[in-house]
Amino acid sequence: MSKGFQTLKGFRDFYPDECDARNYVFNVWRNVAKRYGFVEYEGPILEPTDLYKKKSGDEIVTQLFCFEDKGGRDVSMRPELTPTLARMAAARQRDFKKPLRWFSIGQFFRYEKHQKGRGREFYQFNCDILGEESVAADAELAAISIDIMRELGFTADDFRLRVSDRKAWTDFAEKKGVGEEQIPEFLQIIDKKERTKPEDFEKALATFQVTPSDIEQFIQSGSDASETLQTIVADLTARGLGEFLEVDLRIVRGLAYYTGAVFEIFDIGKGMRAVAGGGRYDQLLKLVGGVDMAACGFAMGDMVITDLVRESEKPNQLLEAGISASQSIDVFVIVADEDRRNDAVNVVQRLRDANFRTAYAMTPAKMGKQFQSAEQMGAANAVIVGTEFPQVSLKNLAERTEVSCSADELIAELQSRK
Amino acid sequence: MSKGFQTLKGFRDFYPDECDARNYVFNVWRNVAKRYGFVEYEGPILEPTDLYKKKSGDEIVTQLFCFEDKGGRDVSMRPELTPTLARMAAARQRDFKKPLRWFSIGQFFRYEKHQKGRGREFYQFNCDILGEESVAADAELAAISIDIMRELGFTADDFRLRVSDRKAWTDFAEKKGVGEEQIPEFLQIIDKKERTKPEDFEKALATFQVTPSDIEQFIQSGSDASETLQTIVADLTARGLGEFLEVDLRIVRGLAYYTGAVFEIFDIGKGMRAVAGGGRYDQLLKLVGGVDMAACGFAMGDMVITDLVRESEKPNQLLEAGISASQSIDVFVIVADEDRRNDAVNVVQRLRDANFRTAYAMTPAKMGKQFQSAEQMGAANAVIVGTEFPQVSLKNLAERTEVSCSADELIAELQSRK
Repeated sequence: MSKGFQTLKGFRDFYPDECDARNYVFNVWRNVAKRYGFVEYEGPILEPTDLYKKKSGDEIVTQLFCFEDKGGRDVSMRPELTPTLARMAAARQRDFKKPLRWFSIGQFFRYEKHQKGRGREFYQFNCDILGEESVAADAELAAISIDIMRELGFTADDFRLRVSDRKAWTDFAEKKGVGEEQIPEFLQIIDKKERTKPEDFEKALATFQVTPSDIEQFIQSGSDASETLQTIVADLTARGLGEFLEVDLRIVRGLAYYTGAVFEIFDIGKGMRAVAGGGRYDQLLKLVGGVDMAACGFAMGDMVITDLVRESEKPNQLLEAGISASQSIDVFVIVADEDRRNDAVNVVQRLRDANFRTAYAMTPAKMGKQFQSAEQMGAANAVIVGTEFPQVSLKNLAERTEVSCSADELIAELQSRK
Repeated sequence: MSKGFQTLKGFRDFYPDECDARNYVFNVWRNVAKRYGFVEYEGPILEPTDLYKKKSGDEIVTQLFCFEDKGGRDVSMRPELTPTLARMAAARQRDFKKPLRWFSIGQFFRYEKHQKGRGREFYQFNCDILGEESVAADAELAAISIDIMRELGFTADDFRLRVSDRKAWTDFAEKKGVGEEQIPEFLQIIDKKERTKPEDFEKALATFQVTPSDIEQFIQSGSDASETLQTIVADLTARGLGEFLEVDLRIVRGLAYYTGAVFEIFDIGKGMRAVAGGGRYDQLLKLVGGVDMAACGFAMGDMVITDLVRESEKPNQLLEAGISASQSIDVFVIVADEDRRNDAVNVVQRLRDANFRTAYAMTPAKMGKQFQSAEQMGAANAVIVGTEFPQVSLKNLAERTEVSCSADELIAELQSRK
């Protein structure tokens, strides 16, 4: 006898409640993106491993679900979407008017330590503007990420968008005499600053003849550090979204390919968890697809945001309203007389044809048990089909009212109640 | 210089048009399933390989994208959903009222020869009723699959649902003296009948001392072959769906786990392509999860159905209406005076807050070029923000009418036009 199979560690089963929570977040992503004039695309879940080796930084490459397929190809389950987007946009760039405003909702895979807010599989919303050099595009992405948070029910008490400028850091490093080829290493040190002991941080910087106080002073300069940052602040302030924004030069982002503004959204509750992040990556399309195209984008995973929605009081109400609306039915048809089963089934079909969510008891059962099923499925109405057919009873289960009508009148009667 | 990466063979890039076609089919699946009172779930894309070895039949196992993960587990990208569903339902069967009416939309992977209507990756709609022994459940699934086809715009001129009974075949075989352990092999021969030369078919049957004319006679018996088939015919006729139905005992389905009614939907146009298929599998939950639960279900892939939708004239209109509605925006905000850019951006934000799909030119450009962008994005309206701000012009781009109003009145004006 089989003991029963287990879900792989770090992977999730989405039972109906979890699936509805997932879909609730997906719908917010999709609706806000469309409101911003973005169109949806999707790429393959499996890609040549080389696509990720080329960029992304070493950490992601060590976490790949990679293998050799039956045709001898070295393939990987995708850990992120940006290289795929760069490949797709480069391949057909002439077919689309610039700027491209594209979003995607899909699943990604990273073999990492399983912990709260992190799985080996997760969904991610990706949102990118391609072919637009203006900083207005960076501001547009910052605004959409803020509006997603607002749509999920969060306010300025709940989160901040922290924006920084990778280019300002590069300029700073060059001014301090850091060589071009050393800049990635220098930025990694800055990226890890908050997680590094002060003495180790000082030691790491010493290689570059830079002191911690040089760094601190630069961080203090805030939006004075670059015109890009000033433009973003002015743009978001004009939108009325200034309260969500914070210039924070400590942000540099881990990925290797960023070239300008970078930003992250943080929960400012107990967790200080990163909810979303992105930035400008003007060189990547050239690297991956041989096409010169400016680009910026950001991604938001489903796990942290779904935890935040669950933990927050206000959005939970939204979430539950969404779930019960999604799982409950409009009408349960009750077979009061088994000789009328086929008539009942005909009524079921007519209700569904009129777009009412309808169910019925497939196994003969007592009326009481059928009413119980109606209640369990959250039915708003019951229709009782019995010996009086084609007369049927229509019962409003919440208000406990009942009317009699012919099966032909039923649809009109229900529609009048909507 | 990189030559540019390629999509893996058998995998698809979904550019915005293809993604919208995909979403159109997804929405039909989801809406019809909800109309039938089904709730959505989803399982992991990666599962232990053993889950598929246990059942499914040998063909699928040879097509697995399987590999050893970094933790030494033998894992596979899922080729189908039923074993996952059986695992999930068995694990938490006490938490749900029977019958479970569950559907899922997800991606699957099979390493097979790349050809039209078949990829190495595809989406599939899965729809199952668990914990219901009554044949009414089989009829319910047949009805939902027919209604999906109808919702996609197909009529009785376009497709048929062919229903058969695996149990009737088993009974027939036993009566002919075929031993219990030989029945899977016997059914495989029947399954391949249409693709086998008559002399080879006769030879294969000879092992069982059965003649082709025995088989032919049984096939001719149609719905007389079983009460199950008679019940399904009566049920679908009561629903008014009889015209879509055909009893066809030639159908036995390839998968090993079917135990009762089985059905397939066929396009009756030039291709005679199979669009969907399923049946009853009352033993699988015991095999996979150690739980005794009746079950039946069917699946519909996205590739054949999307081809049929594209080839068909009537549904194409639906599809295109869906695509243009999904990709076009409501309002394009035109910056007539660069000094007013921040005011324009503020107007953009207010429009989006009121749920209008809105875009604008992020790079300063001449008015004519901005109007061109508005047109390319399918904008219904343009709002012109210039020196007269807070007075703005609202232009209906289809009707070529223009009114002037204050930015504060704009939302109300646009809403009144909806």
